[in-house]
Amino acid sequence: MGHRIITIGREFGSGGRTIGRMVAKKLGIHCYDQELIEKLAEESGLSPEYIKNEGEDASHSSWTAVAFSSVRAMGVPSNQDLIWSIQRKIILELAEKESCVIVGRCADAILEETDADLLKVFIHADFEHRAKRIVEKYGETEVPTEKRLRDKDKRRALYYQFYTDREWGKVENYHVILDSGVLGIQTCADIIAELY
Amino acid sequence: MGHRIITIGREFGSGGRTIGRMVAKKLGIHCYDQELIEKLAEESGLSPEYIKNEGEDASHSSWTAVAFSSVRAMGVPSNQDLIWSIQRKIILELAEKESCVIVGRCADAILEETDADLLKVFIHADFEHRAKRIVEKYGETEVPTEKRLRDKDKRRALYYQFYTDREWGKVENYHVILDSGVLGIQTCADIIAELY
Repeated sequence: MGHRIITIGREFGSGGRTIGRMVAKKLGIHCYDQELIEKLAEESGLSPEYIKNEGEDASHSSWTAVAFSSVRAMGVPSNQDLIWSIQRKIILELAEKESCVIVGRCADAILEETDADLLKVFIHADFEHRAKRIVEKYGETEVPTEKRLRDKDKRRALYYQFYTDREWGKVENYHVILDSGVLGIQTCADIIAELY
Repeated sequence: MGHRIITIGREFGSGGRTIGRMVAKKLGIHCYDQELIEKLAEESGLSPEYIKNEGEDASHSSWTAVAFSSVRAMGVPSNQDLIWSIQRKIILELAEKESCVIVGRCADAILEETDADLLKVFIHADFEHRAKRIVEKYGETEVPTEKRLRDKDKRRALYYQFYTDREWGKVENYHVILDSGVLGIQTCADIIAELY
């Protein structure tokens, strides 16, 4: 069996990334998220900003519009497809190389077919907890908080479904699903680290 | 805040009832499941067998057929409705009285509106693990194992949805969701007891 990999899927504002970092620190392994984006950027020659805008959390230009475009239907990969395949390659290489935590990026589905010893986690929380967290963390914006949460989650769900043919946040796709709003960020990190 | 109550929803064959009993034993509190059915029976004057056949796990006569029947539409409660309301009452009384574990019976949704301090758990596992477990526990039957699993889960999901207006096994309805097939029964019980 391959390296032990913890994948963390998460609703926006649920603290999934923070939990991933806490778990990794506790276990003395790496946590890949922003770092992964930077690696992606280096390898593809695309700028980090571009990848951020067109990747999993794409916000302005909708990657779904590109995904279903007629050009793509003719077999021409979109920039999103390019990012997806580079990202997929990097995740596969990371799992070959070391035990680690990978937040988002469909890592759970990507690594399913490998011999990696996976612990697939999903973090969620109710609207109030997440709203409070994103306002504290990213500040207020012109867009109402509820809409920010809904939009981001919808994009993550679509992205996940489009590239993995699975449903994001669906029970059967994860080993451990925790409500960080009720349990708290620290408790979630403790449970995951202990399970490792 | 009221008593601390652990509710456990579970896929058929996932070991949810066993986990509930292990947690309760560990914590020195009661676990209500079969016991609950017996209490129900005493209070309603219906036989335990009848309640088992018409309740959450109804197998032969489909309670859904009754649920959507024209007689019920005229405001006449079905036997299922009667069982539901007695069961609801008992669960509310238990939560008033003591800290405990309650397996199934929509307890999570029933207690949501009370001041009980809830830990809402859902246990699932993949088909292979559950099939192995039900054959070991209940033996083979004429009905293929896969069909037994699917039918029972479908009935539980319908029952839950019908009486609670929520989706059974949906992430947002639970605080902790664990895959007992991958994590193991003992580990699931340990995590839940620890969170308590």
